[in-house]
Amino acid sequence: MKIAVLGVGLIGGSIGLAAKRRLDAEVAGYDPDPAVAGQAAELGAIDAAAASVGEAVEGAQVVFCAAPVGDLIALVEQALEHSDDDAVITDVGSTKQGLAEAMASRERFIGGHPLAGAETSGVANARADLFEGARWYLTPTQHSSGIHYDRLQRAVADLGARPQAIDAATHDRLMATVSHLPHVLADVLVSQAAETLGDDSERLPEVGPSFRDTTRVAGANPGIWADIFATNSDAVAAEVDAVIERLREASELLRSGDADAIDRWHRAAGRNRMRLAQADAVGGPLRELRVSVPNRPGIIAELTIALGDAGVNIEDMALHPAADMRSGAVSLWVAGDGEAERAAALVQKLGHSASVIGAE
Amino acid sequence: MKIAVLGVGLIGGSIGLAAKRRLDAEVAGYDPDPAVAGQAAELGAIDAAAASVGEAVEGAQVVFCAAPVGDLIALVEQALEHSDDDAVITDVGSTKQGLAEAMASRERFIGGHPLAGAETSGVANARADLFEGARWYLTPTQHSSGIHYDRLQRAVADLGARPQAIDAATHDRLMATVSHLPHVLADVLVSQAAETLGDDSERLPEVGPSFRDTTRVAGANPGIWADIFATNSDAVAAEVDAVIERLREASELLRSGDADAIDRWHRAAGRNRMRLAQADAVGGPLRELRVSVPNRPGIIAELTIALGDAGVNIEDMALHPAADMRSGAVSLWVAGDGEAERAAALVQKLGHSASVIGAE
Repeated sequence: MKIAVLGVGLIGGSIGLAAKRRLDAEVAGYDPDPAVAGQAAELGAIDAAAASVGEAVEGAQVVFCAAPVGDLIALVEQALEHSDDDAVITDVGSTKQGLAEAMASRERFIGGHPLAGAETSGVANARADLFEGARWYLTPTQHSSGIHYDRLQRAVADLGARPQAIDAATHDRLMATVSHLPHVLADVLVSQAAETLGDDSERLPEVGPSFRDTTRVAGANPGIWADIFATNSDAVAAEVDAVIERLREASELLRSGDADAIDRWHRAAGRNRMRLAQADAVGGPLRELRVSVPNRPGIIAELTIALGDAGVNIEDMALHPAADMRSGAVSLWVAGDGEAERAAALVQKLGHSASVIGAE
Repeated sequence: MKIAVLGVGLIGGSIGLAAKRRLDAEVAGYDPDPAVAGQAAELGAIDAAAASVGEAVEGAQVVFCAAPVGDLIALVEQALEHSDDDAVITDVGSTKQGLAEAMASRERFIGGHPLAGAETSGVANARADLFEGARWYLTPTQHSSGIHYDRLQRAVADLGARPQAIDAATHDRLMATVSHLPHVLADVLVSQAAETLGDDSERLPEVGPSFRDTTRVAGANPGIWADIFATNSDAVAAEVDAVIERLREASELLRSGDADAIDRWHRAAGRNRMRLAQADAVGGPLRELRVSVPNRPGIIAELTIALGDAGVNIEDMALHPAADMRSGAVSLWVAGDGEAERAAALVQKLGHSASVIGAE
């Protein structure tokens, strides 16, 4: 089997590594930057760096277009033009509807989006197991041929991922909710805070853990995110509008001063948070373990090595340093009540105070 | 010196411990729950559990009211009534304006708010060093007497904190921006996502790191937060209204599809985030180190112990587990370019790929 990877960054490179290792496939790679293609070949992510799209796709049964979202329409067109008559062409972009519409009549194109690798970039970070167990959305259209879809979903499953067909518009709405919207809110929140606090550093209070968590993704990966926002603008804008509506209600609720109603609203949010977070966790409901610790180098190691040695897996973690950076608290999320209690006991044995905080 | 602590939970208990250890003070404590008062006495946070507010405040030079915000007006009134004529009365509530207005004519009352301990609660977690280096806002009014302010700010400094006078209304606006607003946004975002995603678990995508970070504080500590929202409702509502305005602009910008303008907006948010986060960091600008790792128990320990052994301090941390929970990425924030490069080299020596991500 031969596959072609057009664009050999983190995702393209990882597809190449996985295809070679798991499918024993021949992998041809093309990248507009010859240096990147050379690096990919050196790292063994591709067998050969092709000089052109045409050379790369020749004889390939599956072609993965792994370019930035803004470049995909042109790249997919090229791949369709130069590839064999029965080759299936797919992409790995974070938004799907624009491309799906542009390619609606092309039976050999089926869009795709692996939920993996958002945290890093570059072929140097490529890994053969990047897609292991990851959801990989596929967005066939009415014109997509069954035989091509079947081949693509097999290839994706063989790379270790879990393929799932989804309508392109539904995909973009889902992503708008769980990924694009949080980025917009983070952006808006820091801009708001920057204006309110101004440059008056005397006034600038220690920024608390809630602010840091909520704004951590503000301004993330500018090149990628401007593309995502621009190509999913309708769905993201609709989500933003819905949030505006909810904030208007929240503002009214706050101004009413009705403490009971505010309390009910806030508790409902806590329940929703746990319900959504638990979709991820294996082993039971997520429980938060809060530990008070001195903030010296090595303290996290001490904690986590004790938990690691005992086989406790940490699903999520947040540090809450105190103002002096000499002490603070650590939140560790583990799955399951029993596991959380076991973790608390382990931490207490180290001499730290620890308590398990439930869903409520 | 004698001090009185009314309400001996995390904050009251820590005041007691610090006053005994650092000021060698006599500490009388009162709590409406006798079991809590007993526990505080056992832990050495107070010398004696008083049977009433009157008994506790008798002969005290400084009285700390550490009750829930909603109970403070009544408690401060009681403390003023029963205490000696020259005792200074303060509180430790998270919002200040309501109480300041209610007590505007009382020269012996000066509001206060230590920025510490938000992550845990209960006297069992009390620590003598909880306020070490922490900002402790004091909100004198026009009627507060200078001699009482002086005594209070000395006491607070002696507890290890950094006292700072601030107008009560300004305090509440600041807190609305950096703390209360992020909580409202987190609440709104999860509620929005819960509705959009519904109960259709087949549809529920793996919730990404951006969603988890942005909503981590949703529904946090219900008892405390309903009080905070209710007592700072005007300032929080004003912040919410300002965010609505910004979101309206963002929605318009997104719908315009102007990729360059979207990119500028997004990059500005990234710069603002770094600027605000750096107000906290000692040792230079915060840098993010992204590390690709298998998600096995002990991996965090392996990483952090290597950094800890080398004396690298981790200012913040986020885990980005992949869908299968078997691999993923870790973001570590360290202060200073040199320190970040050093950390990257240490991590690479362990065989993990790591890259330093700058402000842009």
